[in-house]
Amino acid sequence: MTPTPRITIWNEGRHEQRQPEVAALYPEGIHGAIAAGLREHGLTARTATLDEPDHGLSAAALEETDVLFWWGHKAHHEVADDAVERVYRRVLAGMGLIVLHSSHFSKIFTRLMGTTCSLKWRPDNEKERLWVVDRSHPIAAGLDEYIELEQEEMYGEPFDAPPPEELVFISWFQGGEVFRSGCCYRRGSGKIFYFRPGHETNPTYHHPAIRRVLANAARWAAPTGGPPPVFGRRPPLEQLP
Amino acid sequence: MTPTPRITIWNEGRHEQRQPEVAALYPEGIHGAIAAGLREHGLTARTATLDEPDHGLSAAALEETDVLFWWGHKAHHEVADDAVERVYRRVLAGMGLIVLHSSHFSKIFTRLMGTTCSLKWRPDNEKERLWVVDRSHPIAAGLDEYIELEQEEMYGEPFDAPPPEELVFISWFQGGEVFRSGCCYRRGSGKIFYFRPGHETNPTYHHPAIRRVLANAARWAAPTGGPPPVFGRRPPLEQLP
Amino acid sequence: MTPTPRITIWNEGRHEQRQPEVAALYPEGIHGAIAAGLREHGLTARTATLDEPDHGLSAAALEETDVLFWWGHKAHHEVADDAVERVYRRVLAGMGLIVLHSSHFSKIFTRLMGTTCSLKWRPDNEKERLWVVDRSHPIAAGLDEYIELEQEEMYGEPFDAPPPEELVFISWFQGGEVFRSGCCYRRGSGKIFYFRPGHETNPTYHHPAIRRVLANAARWAAPTGGPPPVFGRRPPLEQLP
Amino acid sequence: MTPTPRITIWNEGRHEQRQPEVAALYPEGIHGAIAAGLREHGLTARTATLDEPDHGLSAAALEETDVLFWWGHKAHHEVADDAVERVYRRVLAGMGLIVLHSSHFSKIFTRLMGTTCSLKWRPDNEKERLWVVDRSHPIAAGLDEYIELEQEEMYGEPFDAPPPEELVFISWFQGGEVFRSGCCYRRGSGKIFYFRPGHETNPTYHHPAIRRVLANAARWAAPTGGPPPVFGRRPPLEQLP
Repeated sequence: MTPTPRITIWNEGRHEQRQPEVAALYPEGIHGAIAAGLREHGLTARTATLDEPDHGLSAAALEETDVLFWWGHKAHHEVADDAVERVYRRVLAGMGLIVLHSSHFSKIFTRLMGTTCSLKWRPDNEKERLWVVDRSHPIAAGLDEYIELEQEEMYGEPFDAPPPEELVFISWFQGGEVFRSGCCYRRGSGKIFYFRPGHETNPTYHHPAIRRVLANAARWAAPTGGPPPVFGRRPPLEQLP
Repeated sequence: MTPTPRITIWNEGRHEQRQPEVAALYPEGIHGAIAAGLREHGLTARTATLDEPDHGLSAAALEETDVLFWWGHKAHHEVADDAVERVYRRVLAGMGLIVLHSSHFSKIFTRLMGTTCSLKWRPDNEKERLWVVDRSHPIAAGLDEYIELEQEEMYGEPFDAPPPEELVFISWFQGGEVFRSGCCYRRGSGKIFYFRPGHETNPTYHHPAIRRVLANAARWAAPTGGPPPVFGRRPPLEQLP
Repeated sequence: MTPTPRITIWNEGRHEQRQPEVAALYPEGIHGAIAAGLREHGLTARTATLDEPDHGLSAAALEETDVLFWWGHKAHHEVADDAVERVYRRVLAGMGLIVLHSSHFSKIFTRLMGTTCSLKWRPDNEKERLWVVDRSHPIAAGLDEYIELEQEEMYGEPFDAPPPEELVFISWFQGGEVFRSGCCYRRGSGKIFYFRPGHETNPTYHHPAIRRVLANAARWAAPTGGPPPVFGRRPPLEQLP
Repeated sequence: MTPTPRITIWNEGRHEQRQPEVAALYPEGIHGAIAAGLREHGLTARTATLDEPDHGLSAAALEETDVLFWWGHKAHHEVADDAVERVYRRVLAGMGLIVLHSSHFSKIFTRLMGTTCSLKWRPDNEKERLWVVDRSHPIAAGLDEYIELEQEEMYGEPFDAPPPEELVFISWFQGGEVFRSGCCYRRGSGKIFYFRPGHETNPTYHHPAIRRVLANAARWAAPTGGPPPVFGRRPPLEQLP
């Protein structure tokens, strides 16, 4: 168990540079707001962004990361394939991955899921309610029975990811759609949590319940030290003990 | 495989006797409407009701049933325990069970689920949309991406049943709730499908898409002839072949 | 999260009284050996047995229990129904339950599962290997890729419990059988772990890796403080905010 | 539902050309033996091999395929990426895919799974028993409680694929390993079944029970005609009906 996981928050970071309303909402960047939220729950995090060398995702940086948060949107294609490959291998080796909102289309998530991860959407600042449907799950710790966000982008089913192994939240949207908004997956030695809300022009990452979910997810996704896998050819039968 | 499963539709049948508006809506009973719906899809069914001898669920009747539909509401407690026991054993032996709407609280469903199967509800004739979230599932065959019901009773999460093994539908309700509305379970040799809509004062069982779901579910839940289980003490090691 | 869950180990405790070889193997009882194992991993536990008043499972005792271990075999039928009912309600309210070996046939487990929980068996002291098949799971923390037990009772498939939501171990047996040996279930607010090994005439609860699994399971099953469920009738639509 | 799915059996086909013992065992090729097996169960299939133009997997051929069987081993890297891409899109659009034995390492399977799909192995012609662990599943129709293969290659856990959504078989091996041998996945509109046995130097595809599994799997994986997905931007809220 990793009581205090080493966390890296990765953010594309472009909206904050180019859209004044996003910069106003997130003066420290979306990554900064997430880091502040984690601090409220006793967790510390380093941050990394697309425009840093190696996107801030060097092999050394990843080696020192137990849980990686990922927020991307407009620049998925600018993320270098070798960085994606490094993250991919680290997840299979046990690093937790928290995939946020529009990162459903990130290279790393679609690669790990094996599907398009497509969905329907409507950026109309409508009301969303995230209902807890697995109250036994550690990611639901300390929550009310739903989280209400006054203004969010709608994401609607079908969500073209594999069926989640554990489904924690289902979203209701004002316009008539639903979405599986909190989806857990296990891949290799790693755990992955997809969490739907977090549109760049909405104050979602300042919401206390959202911050709690992110902290819960970091603790849930942290590596737990299971056995390293043994693959490949085994000795012949007659040499078995 | 059972290309044409032998189907029994069980209905409590009390609302039709006591509420003129239900009798008007379902002159042949809810069971009659379901049977008519199945006929549109090439399936025939016998029906059975609470007030028949043995509730129409004698051992002989069950022996000749591949798939049992169940609609109950006000009189769950009037269903005799030995009838429930017979149905229970038949499900574990392979009979399919389609559990409808307020039957979430039936003795047979709560026994098979092992939980309270409680939920929240509001009988206000509001709009429901059942979104297909597993379009690969045979129960979703021939549907549009959602079924819209203009007037239904709301059921809201948490649904206190086990997490479904396959989740086919999620409902959106006008008032702000969501519900896992199409839930598949496997128990013993049997398959179980819980399908949420079907309030007695709404014309739900006349809806073409609802009828299609019921027919699909009957075919999905029909016994498939897997190996009978072998339980109990095995011969000693030295007698193994 | 419950960093140090309050644990109760319940044991039927009859074999130790009646079979000298079991008393020799477990001089403090099976419950005592389990408690000793948990202490090695920083957890403390009270114990309770069948022959105590209320089987040691009074409402007060259960109120102070976050995780309950259960070992029973010959006397399942002697466990009072009202005690089973109290445990059942506590599990749905969030108490973790660790079900051990022959407790697959206990009243509490079969009630929570909704199935017979039957299986095949052979008490021939044969070799068992428990392979970790989910190395990302917290219950697999600190283990090797398998646990080998030189002598155990065989349990073989089919295991007539619901398909586990998370499958952590699969057992291989010398005589040719396999078994899903580490099965996770969520019911209500509670988490349940069934762990296969632990025959009363084998020293299984003295094995270091088995003790580690039990400690991991206690931490995994501890209540996490999710939202209490809200069931029942909701206010009418026109009164919604 | 597709009562008689149009089936294509794809085989690498190299072992049959280069190893006389494989040619002797499978004079019509592994694909020919699989096709013969399907015919015994009322299904017909076309075949395709690596060395045909487009590997026999042109867009037109795939358009006319409801279920694709895949057997590859030594030449995974020779399968052209554009052929893999065509198969991938067809699976997400609803084509069933049956992945056989060493095809766990095929480009198409690892892409759809998102993981390495690695495992351990020992080609020592040892005894394998495939236990049915989900007897309610259509793929288990008509089987005994296990299939015994006198001589097969061992595959051992961990199997680095995602946890299967439905687990039908678990294998026991003489040398002490286990394997999740019959794994169901749903991706997009398509269904995927991984089936472990089928080493090229063993007569596995002549075994009656193996042939039954393959026929069952073809029927299970056939497209069921669910709703085509609607992705992308939705009309604004004020234009909703």
